[in-house]
Amino acid sequence: MSKKIELKIKRLGKCSIPSPIPNHLPPETKEEMFVDDEDLICTCHFSRIDQQEKLCGSVPEFEVAGPRELLYFDPSKTRCGIVTCGGLCPGINDVIRALVHELWLVYGVRRIHGFRYGFQGLAAKYGHDVVDLDPDAVDGLEGRGGTVLGSSRGNQDPIDMVDCLERMAINILFVIGGDGTMRGAQAMAAEIDKRDLKISVVGIPKTIDNDIMYLDESFGFPTAYSIAVGILNAAHAESKGAPNGVGLVKLMGRESGFIACHAAIAMSDVNFVLIPELPFKLDGPEGFLEALKVRLQKRHHAVIAVAEGAGQELLDGSGKDRDPSGNIVLKDIGTFLRDRIKEYFKKINMEVNVRYIDPSYTIRSVPSSPQDRVYCIRLAQSAVHAAMAGKTEMLVGRWHGQMVHVPMSVATSQRKKVEIHGELWRTVLESTGQPPVFK
Amino acid sequence: MSKKIELKIKRLGKCSIPSPIPNHLPPETKEEMFVDDEDLICTCHFSRIDQQEKLCGSVPEFEVAGPRELLYFDPSKTRCGIVTCGGLCPGINDVIRALVHELWLVYGVRRIHGFRYGFQGLAAKYGHDVVDLDPDAVDGLEGRGGTVLGSSRGNQDPIDMVDCLERMAINILFVIGGDGTMRGAQAMAAEIDKRDLKISVVGIPKTIDNDIMYLDESFGFPTAYSIAVGILNAAHAESKGAPNGVGLVKLMGRESGFIACHAAIAMSDVNFVLIPELPFKLDGPEGFLEALKVRLQKRHHAVIAVAEGAGQELLDGSGKDRDPSGNIVLKDIGTFLRDRIKEYFKKINMEVNVRYIDPSYTIRSVPSSPQDRVYCIRLAQSAVHAAMAGKTEMLVGRWHGQMVHVPMSVATSQRKKVEIHGELWRTVLESTGQPPVFK
Amino acid sequence: MSKKIELKIKRLGKCSIPSPIPNHLPPETKEEMFVDDEDLICTCHFSRIDQQEKLCGSVPEFEVAGPRELLYFDPSKTRCGIVTCGGLCPGINDVIRALVHELWLVYGVRRIHGFRYGFQGLAAKYGHDVVDLDPDAVDGLEGRGGTVLGSSRGNQDPIDMVDCLERMAINILFVIGGDGTMRGAQAMAAEIDKRDLKISVVGIPKTIDNDIMYLDESFGFPTAYSIAVGILNAAHAESKGAPNGVGLVKLMGRESGFIACHAAIAMSDVNFVLIPELPFKLDGPEGFLEALKVRLQKRHHAVIAVAEGAGQELLDGSGKDRDPSGNIVLKDIGTFLRDRIKEYFKKINMEVNVRYIDPSYTIRSVPSSPQDRVYCIRLAQSAVHAAMAGKTEMLVGRWHGQMVHVPMSVATSQRKKVEIHGELWRTVLESTGQPPVFK
Amino acid sequence: MSKKIELKIKRLGKCSIPSPIPNHLPPETKEEMFVDDEDLICTCHFSRIDQQEKLCGSVPEFEVAGPRELLYFDPSKTRCGIVTCGGLCPGINDVIRALVHELWLVYGVRRIHGFRYGFQGLAAKYGHDVVDLDPDAVDGLEGRGGTVLGSSRGNQDPIDMVDCLERMAINILFVIGGDGTMRGAQAMAAEIDKRDLKISVVGIPKTIDNDIMYLDESFGFPTAYSIAVGILNAAHAESKGAPNGVGLVKLMGRESGFIACHAAIAMSDVNFVLIPELPFKLDGPEGFLEALKVRLQKRHHAVIAVAEGAGQELLDGSGKDRDPSGNIVLKDIGTFLRDRIKEYFKKINMEVNVRYIDPSYTIRSVPSSPQDRVYCIRLAQSAVHAAMAGKTEMLVGRWHGQMVHVPMSVATSQRKKVEIHGELWRTVLESTGQPPVFK
Repeated sequence: MSKKIELKIKRLGKCSIPSPIPNHLPPETKEEMFVDDEDLICTCHFSRIDQQEKLCGSVPEFEVAGPRELLYFDPSKTRCGIVTCGGLCPGINDVIRALVHELWLVYGVRRIHGFRYGFQGLAAKYGHDVVDLDPDAVDGLEGRGGTVLGSSRGNQDPIDMVDCLERMAINILFVIGGDGTMRGAQAMAAEIDKRDLKISVVGIPKTIDNDIMYLDESFGFPTAYSIAVGILNAAHAESKGAPNGVGLVKLMGRESGFIACHAAIAMSDVNFVLIPELPFKLDGPEGFLEALKVRLQKRHHAVIAVAEGAGQELLDGSGKDRDPSGNIVLKDIGTFLRDRIKEYFKKINMEVNVRYIDPSYTIRSVPSSPQDRVYCIRLAQSAVHAAMAGKTEMLVGRWHGQMVHVPMSVATSQRKKVEIHGELWRTVLESTGQPPVFK
Repeated sequence: MSKKIELKIKRLGKCSIPSPIPNHLPPETKEEMFVDDEDLICTCHFSRIDQQEKLCGSVPEFEVAGPRELLYFDPSKTRCGIVTCGGLCPGINDVIRALVHELWLVYGVRRIHGFRYGFQGLAAKYGHDVVDLDPDAVDGLEGRGGTVLGSSRGNQDPIDMVDCLERMAINILFVIGGDGTMRGAQAMAAEIDKRDLKISVVGIPKTIDNDIMYLDESFGFPTAYSIAVGILNAAHAESKGAPNGVGLVKLMGRESGFIACHAAIAMSDVNFVLIPELPFKLDGPEGFLEALKVRLQKRHHAVIAVAEGAGQELLDGSGKDRDPSGNIVLKDIGTFLRDRIKEYFKKINMEVNVRYIDPSYTIRSVPSSPQDRVYCIRLAQSAVHAAMAGKTEMLVGRWHGQMVHVPMSVATSQRKKVEIHGELWRTVLESTGQPPVFK
Repeated sequence: MSKKIELKIKRLGKCSIPSPIPNHLPPETKEEMFVDDEDLICTCHFSRIDQQEKLCGSVPEFEVAGPRELLYFDPSKTRCGIVTCGGLCPGINDVIRALVHELWLVYGVRRIHGFRYGFQGLAAKYGHDVVDLDPDAVDGLEGRGGTVLGSSRGNQDPIDMVDCLERMAINILFVIGGDGTMRGAQAMAAEIDKRDLKISVVGIPKTIDNDIMYLDESFGFPTAYSIAVGILNAAHAESKGAPNGVGLVKLMGRESGFIACHAAIAMSDVNFVLIPELPFKLDGPEGFLEALKVRLQKRHHAVIAVAEGAGQELLDGSGKDRDPSGNIVLKDIGTFLRDRIKEYFKKINMEVNVRYIDPSYTIRSVPSSPQDRVYCIRLAQSAVHAAMAGKTEMLVGRWHGQMVHVPMSVATSQRKKVEIHGELWRTVLESTGQPPVFK
Repeated sequence: MSKKIELKIKRLGKCSIPSPIPNHLPPETKEEMFVDDEDLICTCHFSRIDQQEKLCGSVPEFEVAGPRELLYFDPSKTRCGIVTCGGLCPGINDVIRALVHELWLVYGVRRIHGFRYGFQGLAAKYGHDVVDLDPDAVDGLEGRGGTVLGSSRGNQDPIDMVDCLERMAINILFVIGGDGTMRGAQAMAAEIDKRDLKISVVGIPKTIDNDIMYLDESFGFPTAYSIAVGILNAAHAESKGAPNGVGLVKLMGRESGFIACHAAIAMSDVNFVLIPELPFKLDGPEGFLEALKVRLQKRHHAVIAVAEGAGQELLDGSGKDRDPSGNIVLKDIGTFLRDRIKEYFKKINMEVNVRYIDPSYTIRSVPSSPQDRVYCIRLAQSAVHAAMAGKTEMLVGRWHGQMVHVPMSVATSQRKKVEIHGELWRTVLESTGQPPVFK
């Protein structure tokens, strides 16, 4: 059998306070509703041992998320903070709202603070105000784009931030952010540990690129690719609207091309998808430009979806600079491709009309879809259950449809990518009809 | 350990024809892309044996869906039929389109026929024409509401239908429909078996109510509840627009209240959700009407989402008639509730303004969301892979995110319901603040 | 030349207070921006006198709306009320918000009250609270469905209502409502006059049916018919989804079929439009049912849009009861048609599958479209300009694209209808291909 | 009285063929439905002569559009062409579809050709194919973005194009395009005249910028600004999502800022609108950057909508190059502003987070709104009525809500602009609260 690795979550201490949840429910359900810390799920669901070994390798086992019968924190005395970090993503406000609802209405917590502008809000030097949150304060947030708390990129000094938590007597900090943010949260947790404080740090993973490991899908991602479908439709109309029209769309996806792949599958008129996972060549008889020429000669229009992280190897000086979140500053593959396409067809004396669209923020700042909203609520509820039970240094995730607890260190250890040998990419190839590689 | 039940799928015979799929893909991926019939997934993913026993009981194991290295049918000589049955659902056209694309573009099948108007299209007595399908014929279908083939309720005589398949020399029949339809398909498969024919019957499960077992979510369901969110918003506006306004919305959900639950969670201003799984009382101090009165006295407006199958026990003569699909004809809980509410408040002399909305077909005939579309394509691809490998009497499903093969008999054996002790219903209770039961 | 009728608006008194508007604008624009009471527009724009006589008859001339250089009310001492009456309509909240913005931000009025639940809010016996309105209070209202003030049907005793205005020292009452409401407002104005009070009553006409005279289009109407297009699309999908499917949609339109006509033109797959302006017969060789049969025999599906006020002459007992707004309670032409169609095809032994959709409130409680929103803002601004200049017993309108002042008595004197000999109906006939009459 | 200028439309010859329209209509309407060439509307609708003189100057009078009782062309022998030129705009496909419907279904014309890729399609050297159009060919086009015929920029040699018309024996050419296109059409008409051919050239004005004179609103413009509202919402979410966030959106509007103005009014959270009609300064105490700083200091976020043609005077080298349509190639005010803002705040050492959005093609390639669609149909019908009556060198327009005929020379003589002293700009200033000028 595969080597199973129990990924138990760190707990601040023994739980002894009865959960108030049963008060809201019919008596007969009490027994069935609570989740036990010993409930683990196996991330490999293949039946046969040889398959497990072949397909899953060593197998992490996650704690099942959900309400615990006994709590570590006494709701009536608990003070919580919420902070949202990094780039925007549809659904952040839904998560904030659901955290407040679960804390206030279900657990009875009455002290909830929102930190402004990401980790800046926890660092004294910025002097950002703190917002008190209650159900009235978050009314009307459902489905609204952006984050009502504001955000910022980059981590702050963990010492400053834990000073802030200590000064404000925060018991639980909910951190909504991506993997850079989670590394910041880990640093904070280490500092908390060092000071021997009883502060729980629980993350809700946010990544519009859908690239966090052990999360079957990230919130906001489906909304984002749905919006991208509309952009691709516009590009398709543009491409058919001019002789040899080329609709070129740059989509989000720094290291993982999930948005480009899903949008292209859902939209069905995309002819080329370029993603970071698969390097490509522009020139030569099996290069991209030749394939584009063939397509245009045959059909007189083409639609291209390129993920922002694709083809970085083609760009001079790529990979050097970093933004405040520690992400590599990507060179602009969109305008580069646009220019190279124009240049190539000029050289071969063939009319081409490139319509370049960079929707940028317009696919990440939109309202969340109802389906995303339901997921955001589940994530927030799971985070509250975990935090009230004293869990820390973890984030909530969904694996095989089941809400789970994932240690922060595991989630940030690597990045989820589009499997070039997998079903998703095969479906993209079928949908676009593009050559498997441009070499 | 729990008793595992291997649910192997019936196969028409030995597979010996190499799949053409690798031709479209880079050589190095060939090995990794095929799925083996011995690949099974375990439907219980809990790690500890005692949990498995407690939470899963006996555990079915499903074949993993995906392309097989060897096929039963020779693509160049295969003739396929597609039929869509029962009520409309967002995404049917996406499934049809993706079946045609996968068959034609990937496997190279050149004979694909669409039967019109459900099983009627296979029964000689109706004389419906048959439609030839190819990529051009299904162009522009993505995201379009309804079914381009038409549908009908009810099963036809399996002898007539298999006569038709035999006469037309159909090798594979794809059946898109709900559990009544799948029972019809099973009858056909039995007749095929009796005649010792080599015809594969593969189902793609369609149920807007999300009530098919061993399917973690049914296609079209997320689109449907997203539309329902808009209806509930209108009901909310109406309820606030009049003194003691009550926005009452009847939503689909014959035996399972998934649409009402999900829409209410996503929309967040619903105050009462009534579903078939939980009988309720109208009168008495803990009845629904009293709770509604209390709500109106406090907030002067209320929104109610009632699933069409809820409260049937309150309605005279319920449960007697059946429609052509064999479904019980439900009595109208919507107008019943509307009238009972008006009557009650008239009696206690309190102004009430009930705005009743029955969106009926408008939530099932809409275009599919991009997210649903991606799922429809995956379902269709899995169905084609299975059928080409000679699998039969099965339907494709998704379990814990993994595409699987489910024997028809297993899928139709029972119906998926909202667990009253589970997370979904608890979230509804939290979101609405309604009493756990009306008794 | 045609007889011109100058429709001058009643004014409470002489204007002597300089408008504060120029303070917000560049000095050089002052001269050009004000409108004079002597600026009139002629409602007949035909050039030749004989055309004027033939096509326009006697010709009303309206005052041009817009800011006046001198005001009657001193903004710093003015107290305003806003009330919304009758059925909901997209855009009401936009009007409320724009009234508050114009009063507060442009004129500097600091006392604005919202009456709850229509005219009930002005009648002491209901005891509804009054809401204070300022820019913060109306923040986020743009594009939201419903009315934040609530509404009710029916007029209250003008004596009670004027008592309320007098007691609260209201100077200006803005009334948003339909023609029943405007008659109530006229009664109030008469009572104000009798008491010799200086209270201005200014209406903003609201009618989802687009049936108010001297208003080229009513706010909310375009949003409503746009929503109806989506419903008709669902009906079309349904009609094609079953053998001889009939998608039957009942749309708003009590006495005027504008919504049905516009939605059918925009949607283009409607085969029959039935409106109140054109009585029709069901039976007989030139009746509607025969035409429907011919259509089904030819194309096997049909879509019908019927306005709620159509065919009332076919319904027993029609025209007797009245609702609290004084409107005749219409009999249900939708279910009547549905049943008669089923019955007819049963008799002639032809399968028919009627899918009846009554979207009811879902087309009137939706958010306003951006285009409607711009119009709502213009209406509200015009109303404020007029009221501040002491105009009363008038409503704001748009005629030939120009914002104007219309005396209440003129606006309520008759109802706008679809001209059976006009371009709109001819376009419907062309779009549907239906026979010109069913006789 | 103002000097009236009768703008009669050139006619190819005497009309003698009875219109077939009455065949589709009830007999009693025949008399009332036809429009006479002597029916003119006066573009100035002010009543008093002094107002007319002051406000309208010399007053054009337009022919009223609509069906004529007698036709110049015999429908059974008429051959028509349709060409779409210039940039895309929502609704082009609706116009094409409605032209075909009106010609085919109402007039019975059976020879309709679509030229591909704008005027290129009429010039022999490009060799583009010609598409035959009938109701089936345009089925499903309603509300689809782009143009099914394709388009191109720039005019071709009128001699080549008229050669093509002559060779193909085209009787009527419908030209859908902007003012550059209309100048090309005029050149064609002059060449036709020179050759003494009987070919009617009728334009349907297309300008997403809403800048054609004597057209109260251009088709596609409302859809475009509605889409822009969504973009501005994203910018607003972005601006609130970061400390001192600035959402900067570049919108279409080369010489007229109508899209920016309307979108800003409808969206209501825009703080600065910059349009071509009003030059502005960046620096200095009353410059734009100082105003932005004040705004950020007060509210910590700002939204800016800048029309692409705004501030060209600030950009080096602006106004020199021209594109193939003859339009001046604008310098990029968007990136210029973005960079200048960053630079300015860096210099004053104040954190600022500029989120720049250039939605470019995504607001012009979208499906038309239902309201736009109705208008497109009216335009197309009017164009067909005019052309069948032998009118030429004209375009159809709407003035004060009335469909009219406008001589091409008049429509292209000048451009419609946002009146800085008018109601629209005043509403923008009220909505944004921005200073009247940046000087």
